Amino acid sequence: MQEKNFNDFVTVDLDEEKNALAIIDQTKLPYAMEMLYLTDQKDIWEAIYHLKVRGAPAIGVSAGIAIYLAARDIRTDDFEDFYARFTEAKEYLNSSRPTAVNLSWALNRQDGVVKANKEKPIPEIVEALHREAIAIRDEDIAMCRAIGENGLTLVKPGYGLLTHCNAGRLAAVKYGTATAPMYLGHERGYNFRIYSDETRPLLQGARLTCFELSQAGMDVTVLCDNMSASAMRQGLIDAIFVGADRIAANGDTANKIGTSMVALAAKRYGIPFYVCAPTSTIDMNTPAGADIVIEQRKPEEVTEMWYERRMAPEDIKVFNPAFDVTDADLISGIVTEYGVCKAPFKESFEEIFRRKNQ
Amino acid sequence: MQEKNFNDFVTVDLDEEKNALAIIDQTKLPYAMEMLYLTDQKDIWEAIYHLKVRGAPAIGVSAGIAIYLAARDIRTDDFEDFYARFTEAKEYLNSSRPTAVNLSWALNRQDGVVKANKEKPIPEIVEALHREAIAIRDEDIAMCRAIGENGLTLVKPGYGLLTHCNAGRLAAVKYGTATAPMYLGHERGYNFRIYSDETRPLLQGARLTCFELSQAGMDVTVLCDNMSASAMRQGLIDAIFVGADRIAANGDTANKIGTSMVALAAKRYGIPFYVCAPTSTIDMNTPAGADIVIEQRKPEEVTEMWYERRMAPEDIKVFNPAFDVTDADLISGIVTEYGVCKAPFKESFEEIFRRKNQ
Repeated sequence: MQEKNFNDFVTVDLDEEKNALAIIDQTKLPYAMEMLYLTDQKDIWEAIYHLKVRGAPAIGVSAGIAIYLAARDIRTDDFEDFYARFTEAKEYLNSSRPTAVNLSWALNRQDGVVKANKEKPIPEIVEALHREAIAIRDEDIAMCRAIGENGLTLVKPGYGLLTHCNAGRLAAVKYGTATAPMYLGHERGYNFRIYSDETRPLLQGARLTCFELSQAGMDVTVLCDNMSASAMRQGLIDAIFVGADRIAANGDTANKIGTSMVALAAKRYGIPFYVCAPTSTIDMNTPAGADIVIEQRKPEEVTEMWYERRMAPEDIKVFNPAFDVTDADLISGIVTEYGVCKAPFKESFEEIFRRKNQ
Repeated sequence: MQEKNFNDFVTVDLDEEKNALAIIDQTKLPYAMEMLYLTDQKDIWEAIYHLKVRGAPAIGVSAGIAIYLAARDIRTDDFEDFYARFTEAKEYLNSSRPTAVNLSWALNRQDGVVKANKEKPIPEIVEALHREAIAIRDEDIAMCRAIGENGLTLVKPGYGLLTHCNAGRLAAVKYGTATAPMYLGHERGYNFRIYSDETRPLLQGARLTCFELSQAGMDVTVLCDNMSASAMRQGLIDAIFVGADRIAANGDTANKIGTSMVALAAKRYGIPFYVCAPTSTIDMNTPAGADIVIEQRKPEEVTEMWYERRMAPEDIKVFNPAFDVTDADLISGIVTEYGVCKAPFKESFEEIFRRKNQ
């Protein structure tokens, strides 16, 4: 594990030479840039569990590659035997982060590939899994790039852009979602000034977003989450791009805790607030934000600063929701791979899905 | 320096037995409760400089006591000689935190005492300084208590109360300002649920406010600054009390960075937002918030987590304003020792100053 140049690698890849899942070890960032080449299923399980790879798209792509690697190692000519061991490997991988939707989504997609090819010889099934793993990876890159192109229509060169948390390339394969317009604009000489909220409690903004954007050569400034209104008031911010964990049918958006406070300040200071997310994040079966259940996470994330030293008294209670809901009326636009949705969002989403399904 | 029970002490005091400035060492909180008894001027200077005592009122009271202790040690019968050495001690103390207004305010008040008694024998001048030091301390306690009584009229038993930063007894002598209604309500069995923003970058909320309120036996929950809107949306907060660094004539209020984002969320969710501050904080010569200069502090406060480990890449820029301005239209009331001011604030302040000067 030697030091590497970040820009030479995508976040998650299939290394064909090493026949390995290649990931950037995110637990080492921003201190060191280390690639991991994983072939053993137990090592891959540990990497997902310990957040060496994180971010919904990145986890999905990792799972698609990992289950192909597992299938390739199954030594049998009998389909029933193959499928039993494939299913065992699938369930083992799925247990690494059971609540990560993209993990089971990618594994189920590969399961469909096996079933569709069940009459073929095992090596051909494995080759189909190989092609599908590559397809999942490439689709993610193309989707993020399309979000970036659509987002780029909303900004001008020289803009100050604020983001919250890491909906960056480190959460995907390349480009990211909220960062995609930044990467594409940077390639075209837009000279953005990027402002990144540090994003307590786990500091994904300070550790990951600042790292990836400064590695790409952008002008990046970090600020505490409670400073973004001040930056807006001082005229430093021209537009805001954030990611999304789930978007309800009316446009209400669940994203990393603190997002709604950025949106409230943006409304106050008349700054456009954009959500960048693939259409797969839009859940038409969830009518509104009030229907989204917010996970509470463990107290130590708040009270033990970066897990090293406790910063609050021992007997204190902790409020630690993982996400919050930004009401649709605070959102200027939702940038998807098929275009930018505007209020009223329900009608706009229906139009986007018609475009997607054409 | 042995472990003490926090509730048995005020934050700053004159220890008559030890003839010393007695302070709680705030740099040790929340890990240890240690009292310092300081007699040497150099030790007092270091204590102020290194924030062992902090908060505008607490620094003022410390300075009033410290300059009395310095005067008591001057061995001379000659007033000119006495005053030269008194002035030297005063200037030395004032250099410990030159921008702290209360520091020079208390020293100048004691200077006035010396000048008013210049015809008297030195021991009588020293005794007058002694009485004034005690008066400065007791006035601070009475003022905070009056703010608490006035604030208490705005809340009901069982309320969830949110605060930001530490405008607590650790910043004053007793009661604090934003915390004064909490202490008085607690004494009367109001059973508040207290929510304390951790307050990045220096975590005064997590370290100090949580400590002092839980030591007093209150129900305290800490949250990251970006979580307060979420707590309000979930109905956990019934009222908000914060302190103030400076209040402009129109009611615009400069306070710890992040305060304005709490106020924006409070407005959104219809929760009353109160500023607690002595009338000395109201600056009728500053027309509006735009006229208040905001200090930028050093980057390492943000990038080096609690000064131990760097959390952002080395080459990153940092935005680190110490304060922000909360616009008057977001403020439900300003609680002073002479009553609660309401919009339009200019007229309300004039009425309060008439009451004060009666």
